[in-house]
Amino acid sequence: MTEPRVATIKPENYWTANGWQHSPCLRIDQGRLLPQSRPDPNSETLNGYVLPGLCNAHSHAFQRAIAGRTEHRTAARDSFWSWRETMYQFAGRIGPDELRAIAAQLYVEMLEAGYTWVAEFHYLHHQPDGQPYADPAAMALALIEAAAETGIGMTLLPVLYQTGGFDARPLNERQRRFWFSVEGLLALCQRLRGLESDRLIVGSALHSLRAVAPAVLSEFLAAESAPQRPLHIHIAEQCAEVDECLALRGQTPVAWLLDHAAVDQHWHLVHATHLSDAEALGIVQSGANVVLCPTTEANLGDGVFPLQKYLDAGGSFAIGSDSHISVSPVEELRWLEYGQRLTKRQRNVAASALQPSVGTRLFDAAWRGGWRAAGVADADDAPGSQALAADLIVLDHQHPQFAASDLAQVLDTWLFAGNQNLVRDVMSGGRWCVREGRHQQRDVIAARYRRVMRGLR
Amino acid sequence: MTEPRVATIKPENYWTANGWQHSPCLRIDQGRLLPQSRPDPNSETLNGYVLPGLCNAHSHAFQRAIAGRTEHRTAARDSFWSWRETMYQFAGRIGPDELRAIAAQLYVEMLEAGYTWVAEFHYLHHQPDGQPYADPAAMALALIEAAAETGIGMTLLPVLYQTGGFDARPLNERQRRFWFSVEGLLALCQRLRGLESDRLIVGSALHSLRAVAPAVLSEFLAAESAPQRPLHIHIAEQCAEVDECLALRGQTPVAWLLDHAAVDQHWHLVHATHLSDAEALGIVQSGANVVLCPTTEANLGDGVFPLQKYLDAGGSFAIGSDSHISVSPVEELRWLEYGQRLTKRQRNVAASALQPSVGTRLFDAAWRGGWRAAGVADADDAPGSQALAADLIVLDHQHPQFAASDLAQVLDTWLFAGNQNLVRDVMSGGRWCVREGRHQQRDVIAARYRRVMRGLR
Repeated sequence: MTEPRVATIKPENYWTANGWQHSPCLRIDQGRLLPQSRPDPNSETLNGYVLPGLCNAHSHAFQRAIAGRTEHRTAARDSFWSWRETMYQFAGRIGPDELRAIAAQLYVEMLEAGYTWVAEFHYLHHQPDGQPYADPAAMALALIEAAAETGIGMTLLPVLYQTGGFDARPLNERQRRFWFSVEGLLALCQRLRGLESDRLIVGSALHSLRAVAPAVLSEFLAAESAPQRPLHIHIAEQCAEVDECLALRGQTPVAWLLDHAAVDQHWHLVHATHLSDAEALGIVQSGANVVLCPTTEANLGDGVFPLQKYLDAGGSFAIGSDSHISVSPVEELRWLEYGQRLTKRQRNVAASALQPSVGTRLFDAAWRGGWRAAGVADADDAPGSQALAADLIVLDHQHPQFAASDLAQVLDTWLFAGNQNLVRDVMSGGRWCVREGRHQQRDVIAARYRRVMRGLR
Repeated sequence: MTEPRVATIKPENYWTANGWQHSPCLRIDQGRLLPQSRPDPNSETLNGYVLPGLCNAHSHAFQRAIAGRTEHRTAARDSFWSWRETMYQFAGRIGPDELRAIAAQLYVEMLEAGYTWVAEFHYLHHQPDGQPYADPAAMALALIEAAAETGIGMTLLPVLYQTGGFDARPLNERQRRFWFSVEGLLALCQRLRGLESDRLIVGSALHSLRAVAPAVLSEFLAAESAPQRPLHIHIAEQCAEVDECLALRGQTPVAWLLDHAAVDQHWHLVHATHLSDAEALGIVQSGANVVLCPTTEANLGDGVFPLQKYLDAGGSFAIGSDSHISVSPVEELRWLEYGQRLTKRQRNVAASALQPSVGTRLFDAAWRGGWRAAGVADADDAPGSQALAADLIVLDHQHPQFAASDLAQVLDTWLFAGNQNLVRDVMSGGRWCVREGRHQQRDVIAARYRRVMRGLR
């Protein structure tokens, strides 16, 4: 990104944790947003509705390339597991150059949709035959380069993935490129942390309980030298996984994890679809965050997360586009709520007595939980009282969709009305990446993506 | 619409009931599409993926104006019924000028999304106090004018709405503008039929079983002089409605209807959400069609239609955007399937052994069922063997979303991948209404809509 960072801005309507502010003056400093007490005559006025950028808290970038290619029957009863076979077949053809091109296309789409940060759950570590690349960080670096090229912030989460089930069976042929020793993975993390900046954080991840044996989990947690960084884990996404855990460990995955690891605010539990009331409460009490991926969870037939109980207990959540069949915070949050309405047969489920607007409550939660999942903000941070990332979304206030909305309805309207992208401009790390709905490098990056995809067919 | 009707076209990839055709030559005649055996050197070549236009089979145009304005809590447990109160409050402020402006904005959005025909379920007949307008057809004419202005085809369905419940209680103050005698409604239909053309059909509708007493239903069916035109009815949308019918008539609504009316292929049952297996089979055996509105049914917390059983029994369906919180065939069909996946916990539910592509099966069904609901095609029509409406959607084949798709995956990709509108051009009735994603009168119509909405706030 070549455009210089902006100095001071004056958003006409600026949404903060305390509601809408009218025309505050803000200074951008090192990718952070600070209040500017003295008005600056040169500040850029931002018309429209200005929101903080969102973090897309769960991404497997390479899967973007199979969006739309797995919606046909391959078995008498298709499921997550038959989908995974197709996904593995495709993954076997992706090297660093392909990954960079696919990720850049994806990140352009994310920025245009209002995501200014992405948490990459990265397990495509080695060559398809399991041998490390000449540079063992080649695939991780491809993701980091794609983020830098597009301007999106990144939390990279190198993933520990060692076994194929709760019985500790070895990875199969298609999974062997995922394997790292604990030592090897932590060495990779250590090296990548040398590249950290205000736009790059390197956390880590456990693929799932079925991919990491109990002793290895302990080894990893004892050895991870940066426990203050975010730690992500897939959990309780599929019933088959819950059942296998129950059969072999005598507990469901979330209950087992809460009993066997010091889960705290640095933990981010991805999906957590199938929860008992006690497990939901256990997550809240641990201080952990969950990462919900409603469009992927629908596409893969996972099931419906118990949102109302979890929110009413004080739970925190982020959203992620995961397999990227959809790339839109609007579709994630709209259908997170609609999934509740369909199954509970009532309306405005995520609203509360304190926050009657569903759009406001969902956006507020996803925004806070997202920055926690990225490791940019902490659970204890009081948003508004501290410097925020200079990541902004500007909604097009002149769009007919807003013709009838007052300020209190802007977030409801954005999330629940219509199908056009209302995101007009996006600032990421103090730089304008998207203007008038178009990423500045959209065409160049799309052309390269098309070329790479033709090669992969 | 001033642009002249096109003469002959040559779509590069043309989707028909028999699959993809390569570069057929087609002649456009009186709004119909006919095969042209002799190649025409002046024919317009259409690059991209060319699909037949879709009918939006259930619309209450005025509700477009409250999209995004009812997503906040108004009761301890919000529902369809609390939503309806808000909707009525708003409807009370709409006259013919407002309706024309709102409908035109909506129809522009429909055309840009790929709908080329709309079935208007029209019950906002009179002035708010229940008095007829000076011209009793004023509201119906406003809808017809909005359709003509935007180029969308229309099936207008004037609605009989007389009572407020199965106990035949009178309409309340907010509903009284809906009331018509059977005679009055049929006179309106008769007059409007004088305006019919290749782009306007006038059918009729019963609001619901709770709005029409049994004797009135019989009277209406005996008196309707055009029984070959489509007849629509809301049915079994909400559990409360099903329960009240069961309590007062001893049967659930669909079972009652099938027993008390000669339901046939001209009937279109809107929603039909709550069905027993026997009712689903009964609908199929009657030859009737159902009209599903997945985004509205989610927004209102209605529930999930038993799609797989219904399709496997040979059922026919159309889609509608109903309350217009969404206006997109992509979102309707995507979430029709995803609702199934979430509740059944499997993938590719709408696929069949004969048609493994979910996108193809859903598009094909919604296309056929849509034209039936519009009254343009009949259940007995074999699509492809007869002249079709000259209504076409052209998908942008150069979009990165299609970079990896072969022809067999085009419909899966359109319906299940991403969030950008892939509809590039739309022909309606032989005229190009949308080019490069923009309706030709988008700006003029949006400006008028904004002005009218400011007046209504």
